[in-house]
Amino acid sequence: MAVYTQVSAEALADFLTAYDVGDLVAAKGIAEGVSNSNYLVETTRGRFILTLYEARTRAEDLPWFVALMRHLADAGLPVARPVAARDGGALRRLCGRDACLIEFLPGVSLSTPTEAQAAAVAAAMAVMHRAGEGFAPPRANELGQAAWRGMAEAMGPRLETISPGLRARVMAEVTALEAAWPHALPGGVIHADLFPDNVLMLGGRVTGLIDFYFACNDLRAYDLAVMETAWAFDAADRFLPGHAAALRAGYGGLNDAELAAMPVLARGACLRFLLSRAQDWLDTPASALVTRKDPLSYLRRLEHYAS
Amino acid sequence: MAVYTQVSAEALADFLTAYDVGDLVAAKGIAEGVSNSNYLVETTRGRFILTLYEARTRAEDLPWFVALMRHLADAGLPVARPVAARDGGALRRLCGRDACLIEFLPGVSLSTPTEAQAAAVAAAMAVMHRAGEGFAPPRANELGQAAWRGMAEAMGPRLETISPGLRARVMAEVTALEAAWPHALPGGVIHADLFPDNVLMLGGRVTGLIDFYFACNDLRAYDLAVMETAWAFDAADRFLPGHAAALRAGYGGLNDAELAAMPVLARGACLRFLLSRAQDWLDTPASALVTRKDPLSYLRRLEHYAS
Repeated sequence: MAVYTQVSAEALADFLTAYDVGDLVAAKGIAEGVSNSNYLVETTRGRFILTLYEARTRAEDLPWFVALMRHLADAGLPVARPVAARDGGALRRLCGRDACLIEFLPGVSLSTPTEAQAAAVAAAMAVMHRAGEGFAPPRANELGQAAWRGMAEAMGPRLETISPGLRARVMAEVTALEAAWPHALPGGVIHADLFPDNVLMLGGRVTGLIDFYFACNDLRAYDLAVMETAWAFDAADRFLPGHAAALRAGYGGLNDAELAAMPVLARGACLRFLLSRAQDWLDTPASALVTRKDPLSYLRRLEHYAS
Repeated sequence: MAVYTQVSAEALADFLTAYDVGDLVAAKGIAEGVSNSNYLVETTRGRFILTLYEARTRAEDLPWFVALMRHLADAGLPVARPVAARDGGALRRLCGRDACLIEFLPGVSLSTPTEAQAAAVAAAMAVMHRAGEGFAPPRANELGQAAWRGMAEAMGPRLETISPGLRARVMAEVTALEAAWPHALPGGVIHADLFPDNVLMLGGRVTGLIDFYFACNDLRAYDLAVMETAWAFDAADRFLPGHAAALRAGYGGLNDAELAAMPVLARGACLRFLLSRAQDWLDTPASALVTRKDPLSYLRRLEHYAS
């Protein structure tokens, strides 16, 4: 939620000459996403989001993300379309970073979505999953179930500095999920991070699915489980059964095996965000102005499913 | 350059119902200004900047700033106009902060303005000074010459942690300027912080003078001196005589006493920013993501005038 790379107006105006988008009218660094720098750019032809990819997004993955966003936009999904430069490419360099100019989408991210809004987003996710069927090549989920033991072991005893007993709790969950993970469920392209702040809405309408930089191939029902852990709990980490039911109803079409696996998948989703937030917590000084998301929020959500 | 106060879309939509500006379409937290939180807000009727005033801007001063911005906008200056709510007021509360919805202005802030651009902004400053003649009541400059000794003494030996010898250098300058300050020059309402990042331009045209939260009554030529210390040095703190000449030519109409006093006024401007940056430097942990502006940059600019 910060602008890590400062782009001067002069450098931005020069950058835009590579595109057929008119002349620069306004540009504001915006607090959007977690790990990249973003600018809201207005030209004489329209508005765009300019993303500069910081270290955490791997350069070799960018063409896949760009192709996926374009594929989903072409399929009619409310996904921001990367803008092609005059040379046809959508990825360029700016201020020493890989950069992409992306269509601006209206809408706001909700902090306390209603059940109906949750259902609408889950329905959009189902459409996205179907649209992803034609997309290749696959991309492995680097933060998927196979990665969790390694993430946990790399932090090791430092987990105890977040909360006493956390290391043993995490390792037990890693082991339990290794045994219980439902590998045979239907897979496909998933968003893998469809939290409320990655969705734009106007009232009950989904106007944007954004931030595809964790998208990958994995179990489809796991994508819905990630949503459930993010949309079906309140700020005090209390489960909201009405929201969870609305998500499943909105998504629709889960088969019996997927329905039966949902609690295990949700435990996995909680563990994944617990682990990545623990990494960020341990890597970010407490005095930094970037808000560290509390890993223990996801431990509390995990206990809802594990108990 | 951060969003200190997070405003949810739900709270923002509710806030906007107090205005006749239509419905919320988009909102992005933006990295603008130094000490307040800002959002770029789009509604069905237009675009606005929403400012939430953080601790550093004193609540009792806000009505004066709002009235000044409106006065200057009414006079035809490219100054963002505060939007009146349905009840006629321009200041409301949001998320525990005083808040103001302000007209959006096009344009970008330049990092390396040309001489012609500097002249255009100085000309706009001259128009602003004339437009300010009809504005009352006056507001004292809390960071003006009378304040510098107190600012320096409050930091005392801590100045040495920034650079050895800085304390003695600063105290000598405080004393020298107390003796040399040209109190009798023409005064009026000044911006007092018209750095390039507080000006919006489209090519050679000034489209916005922004961030009036240091505006006050003080010597008019001091306002131009502040500009000179900000616009007439390059990033390596080398003086740009062509830019300085362009500023004076663009401003026009300085009398002989003002022209003679410019070096002293510029030393004062350098000292003022050296002191406030030193305060920020000492108050901001090095690990914070907010960029601390280097106080020594203004020591180097000061030495240009003092040597």
